[in-house]
Amino acid sequence: MKTEPHQTASHGHLVIIGGHEDRKHGKEILTRFVELAGGPGARIVVITAASQVADDMWEQYDQAFGDLGVTQRSHLTLTSRQDANNEEKVRMVAEADGIFMTGGDQKRLLAIIGGTALDAEMHTALKVRGACIGGTSAGASAMSGHMLAQGKTDLLPEKGAVSLGAGLGFLHRVVIDQHFSERHRLSRLLSVVAQNPYLQGIGIDEDTALVVERGRGIEVLGEGSVTIVDGRTMDTNMADIRERDTPELIDVRLHLLPAGSRYYLPSDNEPLVKPMSPSLRDFLENVTKRNPIS
Amino acid sequence: MKTEPHQTASHGHLVIIGGHEDRKHGKEILTRFVELAGGPGARIVVITAASQVADDMWEQYDQAFGDLGVTQRSHLTLTSRQDANNEEKVRMVAEADGIFMTGGDQKRLLAIIGGTALDAEMHTALKVRGACIGGTSAGASAMSGHMLAQGKTDLLPEKGAVSLGAGLGFLHRVVIDQHFSERHRLSRLLSVVAQNPYLQGIGIDEDTALVVERGRGIEVLGEGSVTIVDGRTMDTNMADIRERDTPELIDVRLHLLPAGSRYYLPSDNEPLVKPMSPSLRDFLENVTKRNPIS
Repeated sequence: MKTEPHQTASHGHLVIIGGHEDRKHGKEILTRFVELAGGPGARIVVITAASQVADDMWEQYDQAFGDLGVTQRSHLTLTSRQDANNEEKVRMVAEADGIFMTGGDQKRLLAIIGGTALDAEMHTALKVRGACIGGTSAGASAMSGHMLAQGKTDLLPEKGAVSLGAGLGFLHRVVIDQHFSERHRLSRLLSVVAQNPYLQGIGIDEDTALVVERGRGIEVLGEGSVTIVDGRTMDTNMADIRERDTPELIDVRLHLLPAGSRYYLPSDNEPLVKPMSPSLRDFLENVTKRNPIS
Repeated sequence: MKTEPHQTASHGHLVIIGGHEDRKHGKEILTRFVELAGGPGARIVVITAASQVADDMWEQYDQAFGDLGVTQRSHLTLTSRQDANNEEKVRMVAEADGIFMTGGDQKRLLAIIGGTALDAEMHTALKVRGACIGGTSAGASAMSGHMLAQGKTDLLPEKGAVSLGAGLGFLHRVVIDQHFSERHRLSRLLSVVAQNPYLQGIGIDEDTALVVERGRGIEVLGEGSVTIVDGRTMDTNMADIRERDTPELIDVRLHLLPAGSRYYLPSDNEPLVKPMSPSLRDFLENVTKRNPIS
């Protein structure tokens, strides 16, 4: 199932984590984040703006990144949009090799940084300087252009149960949910995809990361799996049913990528070893796409 | 999404229930079972052999079918294979218009009736006399040729977690799980389908029934949905991973049919209104197929 990577210069990485990543023991995912930022010599900033307990969050990551040998680690405190346009704070992002967004509430995070100078500087960091951007839980959901903002479903998908918002837009044509298997969120993700078949749904388990290297490929890391639901070729009665009713869904495509799964785009001189699922291929192209700076 | 039925004589019905069907209030599913057996004048027998508390089970269905006006209702007690070959008990099946199998343990049910004269008489009832066979929970899983026998998964599919047994074989090329959304059993059903892609997986929610009219079509009834997972065109590394590892699954097809969904095979003079998903069409043909008496 695996295709081999080809070597090029880094075009920036995303480490998209489903929450509850190990911060105390093996720290597999945080270790990879540090490596992709350049190793222990990297300058790492932690954005805690999604959380109402920012200092507690920082304390945990300060400890974890310290344990991993990172000496230049900083807490980027942001409690207002003024903060997110503050020159000194924006400079912290401009000088960072790794930018990590903690959990909390993705709506809170976007309300503070969406559309600010700091937001723009994160895009520059990723796309121009090839920095690594990590995010866990709310920090993961915030990464896509269409962001899963709020809403729950009971056991089955429901029309109108979940609402989207505008996320940071490091990836497009996808929507990201987290704590996925642990909180039984397939019905929630299917609710989004049934209403918005333009988006491929990504569900990331706890202590699990989808690592994206822009322009090259993806890898799944950690303890769980990444689930992808693709409704682009599905048929549904979503348009005709009432709010809160369960839609009929025919021909949803589902992919399950456990830790260890790796897929890379073929390079010009290294064609694919075997044909790839068109749905998975589109997913790979969407998430690795080197979008221009927004 | 719906195609209209065409009228022909009944070739027998299956009412496959995901457990916990309403037995006290509206009784939507049991009402339909009685209707399909011929109405309140029908002779209904209840097979409780899956259960260790057969008398308690009978008491509940005695009450429920009595409330629905059924006067000729009988408890078919079976505690051994001798019972299931007993002439008088087999005659109860031979004279029944409706045969209902309660919950319990499907392995226990099959150990008692699998391959007996009573088993054969149930096939005759369904296929020759056009009787209605209902089953809930264990009684639902028991209906397919390949029966989900035992095994649990945690949050994700696992190789080797679930084992199959030989069921009653009223339907083929499928495997049936119940209490589906309530017990979060998608990972269990995917485990079966990943290992046995010949089988389409059917997951039935509680108080929900998949009603099959042989040779004609299907309908979903009740409070929940029926989930179908089709792995026939999937790609997987199942053959190469270790026991208990989570397989990679690419291009599983998933269908969600909420209560109210109805699909009928086109008749010669009533072509389909619109093209049907090939996967769903195959499912429809598999479950409605008028297999010969085994």
